[in-house]
Amino acid sequence: MPQILVVNPNTSKKSSEVIKMALLPYLTGDLLIDVVNSKAGPEGIDTLLDIAISGIEAVKIVVENRDKYDGFVIACGADPGVDLARQVTKKPVVGSAEAGMLLACTLGSKFTMLTGLQAEIPILYELVSKYGLEKRLASIIPVHMDTSTIVHGEKDILQHNITAGRKAIKEDLAEVLVLAGSVVAGIALPLQKELGIPVVPGLVAALKLCEDLIGMDLWTSQVYKYYSINKKDKLYGYEDFQDVFSL
Amino acid sequence: MPQILVVNPNTSKKSSEVIKMALLPYLTGDLLIDVVNSKAGPEGIDTLLDIAISGIEAVKIVVENRDKYDGFVIACGADPGVDLARQVTKKPVVGSAEAGMLLACTLGSKFTMLTGLQAEIPILYELVSKYGLEKRLASIIPVHMDTSTIVHGEKDILQHNITAGRKAIKEDLAEVLVLAGSVVAGIALPLQKELGIPVVPGLVAALKLCEDLIGMDLWTSQVYKYYSINKKDKLYGYEDFQDVFSL
Amino acid sequence: MPQILVVNPNTSKKSSEVIKMALLPYLTGDLLIDVVNSKAGPEGIDTLLDIAISGIEAVKIVVENRDKYDGFVIACGADPGVDLARQVTKKPVVGSAEAGMLLACTLGSKFTMLTGLQAEIPILYELVSKYGLEKRLASIIPVHMDTSTIVHGEKDILQHNITAGRKAIKEDLAEVLVLAGSVVAGIALPLQKELGIPVVPGLVAALKLCEDLIGMDLWTSQVYKYYSINKKDKLYGYEDFQDVFSL
Amino acid sequence: MPQILVVNPNTSKKSSEVIKMALLPYLTGDLLIDVVNSKAGPEGIDTLLDIAISGIEAVKIVVENRDKYDGFVIACGADPGVDLARQVTKKPVVGSAEAGMLLACTLGSKFTMLTGLQAEIPILYELVSKYGLEKRLASIIPVHMDTSTIVHGEKDILQHNITAGRKAIKEDLAEVLVLAGSVVAGIALPLQKELGIPVVPGLVAALKLCEDLIGMDLWTSQVYKYYSINKKDKLYGYEDFQDVFSL
Amino acid sequence: MPQILVVNPNTSKKSSEVIKMALLPYLTGDLLIDVVNSKAGPEGIDTLLDIAISGIEAVKIVVENRDKYDGFVIACGADPGVDLARQVTKKPVVGSAEAGMLLACTLGSKFTMLTGLQAEIPILYELVSKYGLEKRLASIIPVHMDTSTIVHGEKDILQHNITAGRKAIKEDLAEVLVLAGSVVAGIALPLQKELGIPVVPGLVAALKLCEDLIGMDLWTSQVYKYYSINKKDKLYGYEDFQDVFSL
Amino acid sequence: MPQILVVNPNTSKKSSEVIKMALLPYLTGDLLIDVVNSKAGPEGIDTLLDIAISGIEAVKIVVENRDKYDGFVIACGADPGVDLARQVTKKPVVGSAEAGMLLACTLGSKFTMLTGLQAEIPILYELVSKYGLEKRLASIIPVHMDTSTIVHGEKDILQHNITAGRKAIKEDLAEVLVLAGSVVAGIALPLQKELGIPVVPGLVAALKLCEDLIGMDLWTSQVYKYYSINKKDKLYGYEDFQDVFSL
Repeated sequence: MPQILVVNPNTSKKSSEVIKMALLPYLTGDLLIDVVNSKAGPEGIDTLLDIAISGIEAVKIVVENRDKYDGFVIACGADPGVDLARQVTKKPVVGSAEAGMLLACTLGSKFTMLTGLQAEIPILYELVSKYGLEKRLASIIPVHMDTSTIVHGEKDILQHNITAGRKAIKEDLAEVLVLAGSVVAGIALPLQKELGIPVVPGLVAALKLCEDLIGMDLWTSQVYKYYSINKKDKLYGYEDFQDVFSL
Repeated sequence: MPQILVVNPNTSKKSSEVIKMALLPYLTGDLLIDVVNSKAGPEGIDTLLDIAISGIEAVKIVVENRDKYDGFVIACGADPGVDLARQVTKKPVVGSAEAGMLLACTLGSKFTMLTGLQAEIPILYELVSKYGLEKRLASIIPVHMDTSTIVHGEKDILQHNITAGRKAIKEDLAEVLVLAGSVVAGIALPLQKELGIPVVPGLVAALKLCEDLIGMDLWTSQVYKYYSINKKDKLYGYEDFQDVFSL
Repeated sequence: MPQILVVNPNTSKKSSEVIKMALLPYLTGDLLIDVVNSKAGPEGIDTLLDIAISGIEAVKIVVENRDKYDGFVIACGADPGVDLARQVTKKPVVGSAEAGMLLACTLGSKFTMLTGLQAEIPILYELVSKYGLEKRLASIIPVHMDTSTIVHGEKDILQHNITAGRKAIKEDLAEVLVLAGSVVAGIALPLQKELGIPVVPGLVAALKLCEDLIGMDLWTSQVYKYYSINKKDKLYGYEDFQDVFSL
Repeated sequence: MPQILVVNPNTSKKSSEVIKMALLPYLTGDLLIDVVNSKAGPEGIDTLLDIAISGIEAVKIVVENRDKYDGFVIACGADPGVDLARQVTKKPVVGSAEAGMLLACTLGSKFTMLTGLQAEIPILYELVSKYGLEKRLASIIPVHMDTSTIVHGEKDILQHNITAGRKAIKEDLAEVLVLAGSVVAGIALPLQKELGIPVVPGLVAALKLCEDLIGMDLWTSQVYKYYSINKKDKLYGYEDFQDVFSL
Repeated sequence: MPQILVVNPNTSKKSSEVIKMALLPYLTGDLLIDVVNSKAGPEGIDTLLDIAISGIEAVKIVVENRDKYDGFVIACGADPGVDLARQVTKKPVVGSAEAGMLLACTLGSKFTMLTGLQAEIPILYELVSKYGLEKRLASIIPVHMDTSTIVHGEKDILQHNITAGRKAIKEDLAEVLVLAGSVVAGIALPLQKELGIPVVPGLVAALKLCEDLIGMDLWTSQVYKYYSINKKDKLYGYEDFQDVFSL
Repeated sequence: MPQILVVNPNTSKKSSEVIKMALLPYLTGDLLIDVVNSKAGPEGIDTLLDIAISGIEAVKIVVENRDKYDGFVIACGADPGVDLARQVTKKPVVGSAEAGMLLACTLGSKFTMLTGLQAEIPILYELVSKYGLEKRLASIIPVHMDTSTIVHGEKDILQHNITAGRKAIKEDLAEVLVLAGSVVAGIALPLQKELGIPVVPGLVAALKLCEDLIGMDLWTSQVYKYYSINKKDKLYGYEDFQDVFSL
């Protein structure tokens, strides 16, 4: 009975509800999930600073729960804390943006990422580049809405995404769309119906890949990038992490 | 009750047995699979020509079965026919090499591919490059065995892979290994136990990703790369494909 | 008296006529050429599947003729079977797209490829990328005509190419055009006269490079990528190739 | 009278002393500097988690001091918090690794980065890649010492770096060395004397570039990547940053 | 008392005046500079041939003065002779384009280069690529004025650059502008005031970086790229350089 | 009766003899060639400065002869003046390194360049990169001989190249060798016989490609990179080029 913790790295309970609702239709077999917010940090994740703070807070949740779950999903389109969480547990950790892009690769030669704000383009581009997937990227297109607006259910979200998607297909030759953000996962099916190309909700992709890794007995490699050294140092103010350093 | 056809693009019944055995432990829920060989072509797939012939033969199998299954896995480490099959059906088609690499990306920053022969290095490198994953590649290391040798159960296969894997970790800073070839999927678990880093069997990864795509209602994008035109032309000698051209 | 076989990998006799006419003005010295169609496969080559089938059929022609000619040209803008043919003979094999791009590199910093259909853009892009020439590519522009239409002499072909070429120069800063397709080789000179930049017909470029390689006693390297292993396996249904495996 | 705050993002007072001593010989004109530690976080920065925590803590220092100084240097070879700090102030912020690499580019075609631990190689490689400088990188070579060991003055530090540097020159054709870490800045001159190639101490380079930017009236661009949105959201637990969100 | 020679590689005295005026506000401390023209070559540097000739002439000036100055700045947006000068002296040599781009990297994720003529785009692109900074480049935009026009003070130069800059910000998501050309250095401050993003005058950046390198005791690496061999050969017609070959 | 001028950009008559001898066996049909030295500059071309000076001198030869020949070959492995010559004439200009690499691309997936000195590695690497061919490059290997030594017929040149070639095949998986330097063109055939892989003499390749371009009525594109502006400026000291500026 695999159990996955979906970490919503912001502090908005409302968005956790949205995330939970979006995931329900995809739960199969005996998989159990919990969705939990970070305990501190921003209500919506839109800027570099939001991402950094949420990353630390998300990893605190992972540390706290690392014995209780079989894998972790980070439910945010900027993958905050995904790399960090891989240092504190060997259990699978999967990010929404990452998973959305990886699955998209099996459906067409180029994907477009739909995101919230124009200012996120360079941030997401750096993420795509870190994952080594520039060659598969058609474009990153903002729908010009911040996370809070989306969570609070602006009713023309679908329409904004349809417009952006059409542009992606026509001008950028996108063959697949990736919905980076978690709170928009629910519009993937109507959007793909409308546009006629596959639309990958990153959040759901992350849950699926996490389940795959658990089912295949695969764990995070901690030999180099995700290595922890046996610190003799103190870690002031972050006592929760102190023991993470001791291997 | 999702049904996936695992197409073994070579003509060796023995290797289909090996593949079936390797997949059994990973079947979960109500998933049903069949494993079927190509009807013509090489018994083992080692060279460019093998790959091309097997690709055509694999896609014939897919055409024949496209109404009977929900998705298709191509069980060969060079992904023969994967692109082609995506033109003849919108249902998910996943290749072993592709899937192994994509899942490996969630486990470490660089992976090494273990393959059969040194001559396959440029062929696999072109595949990695086509998928846009050069940046994530630590190295491609041959174990110096052709497919037939492996299928016929040379007993030191595990040992050859351990040696190659150690080299990958030490010299190329590999954090994850990908077993490109299908018939070696069974050694993934003992290999990862021995080496202490995750070892992804591409074959199993392909099955998992295919199941994910089916579960998410995702299909192949046929707007550009996988487009078929409504040919007025005849397709001499490949009558099976004639109707594939008519959209 | 060098003899080159121009393999037209489709099954349209008409297009072989067009190809022959296009090549005549470029035959110099004592060079002899024959133009021959594949015996099976599509009449026009527009999609991934067309390319794959034509590739196999083209290589069958090469196998059959490998003792009779000094070199081989594959007359199609997607280079079907070029890689495969290099496995079955050490004699020079040159593709039209490849040759067009290579020659274009000596004439300007960036070239645009003119092709038939928009859906071919990702396919050609992958070809450019496989050849490692992305940095030299200004753009790929479709003239929105399939191969058959072109062969059957739609009279505004030149005009379509002029329009596409002007766009390439102005918007993409193209300095050179490459005509990927073989059947359009004949419009290279009027097109370049009209546009004021060099236009390289890939077909002719392939013939020239093939002749160069023959004249320089250069042959294909078969140490890695184009290696054949001495198969103990049978190759069911492709008996023509059986002996290709025996080195 | 330009004033620069050198933020040492770890919590080791001793390393701040080392940093101050290393910078003294390079202070020219009327430049004033202060060196200050983060108030929380690790004593030495070696892993991904160290970098993330130190980044947040460093940016807290920058927020606190953003009205008092003309520019900021982040004194750590992994550039923790550099991007974040650029969101909270328009005043110049320069990182040690970044500055070391940029200056190295003016001295030779390829540089090698010397760092502490082998596990840092992928982390630094991702940094080099984020900065877009892969093409200029000869290699990243660890001297196999963690930050604490270096701070506490292991006397063979110079010798370890000489060995690594010789390897870089001979095997990787490095023309320049970059000392990523701040606490080793003091060995740059003896090291370059010994090796006969230029050795750039990232820490000093950062101070110099920061001074340059101040002198040229240049500030950080906050139109896209470093944009802050006017949040209606609360930022729980990070009240120091609340006003950062209000533009 | 560091002394830097600013080599204006063209033969226009007027442009040297412009350069001197542009640099004056940035001279700090005890730095002394001289600005000197090449003795032969073009009055303005716009084409490949201009760049090559000016490069040779600039390096003649450097050879002549290599004992009299502590460092050299090449004041031209195509960096003519920068690489060459690094072979004839170990003292720092910095180019305007190079320095502008390097400093821009600390201010935003992507920069746009503003240059004179459209025909310079591929030339500058090759320069950006040689420096390995493609990933940081948003675009290269010409203001459609040759060097002479700019030097002779066409009064709408600022306006042309404002227009180009706005396009860069809006269409190419440029976060920083680099003024490649030396003679436009004086408009950097009004331009950045108008556009609201930082504008880096390459010329001033070069002076600053040169001063940094001098202050840090850094010199050019001559182990590989900038190596001179002890020629037994004669160097006909370039006697000034004869001794450069003797190490 | 096409006539090609082979410009040997150094001043060694002896090397022009070697070049002429190397080309003789490859002259076919009615092709006429002349080989001519630069009138000034170094006797051998080994360093950046040699390349720059030889480039200017080579282009002087081209300017002088631009009405007398149908095309130009620059006979030196660093392609000095190739880009420049393309600005002064629309007639085809082909460089030895460039042509060698382009032809090599048709013979295998990766080539190794054999060159004279280790210090030339970064210089040649930049050339490969300018041509956009990094992906096809296996390695650059020096034989540790300067040009003069080679010209004066050191008898173990072949042996040095065999050793380097074997290393390339075994360690770098080179499938083809490119002899960049012109004066070694004569050893291509014995070398390829010895090594069992194709060896492309750049010099001969350049002649062949130049002949191809002439035969195809292709000329250099002068719309962007090779553009000349109608200068009102004077070009002091380079009067030969004055009229080159007037279009």
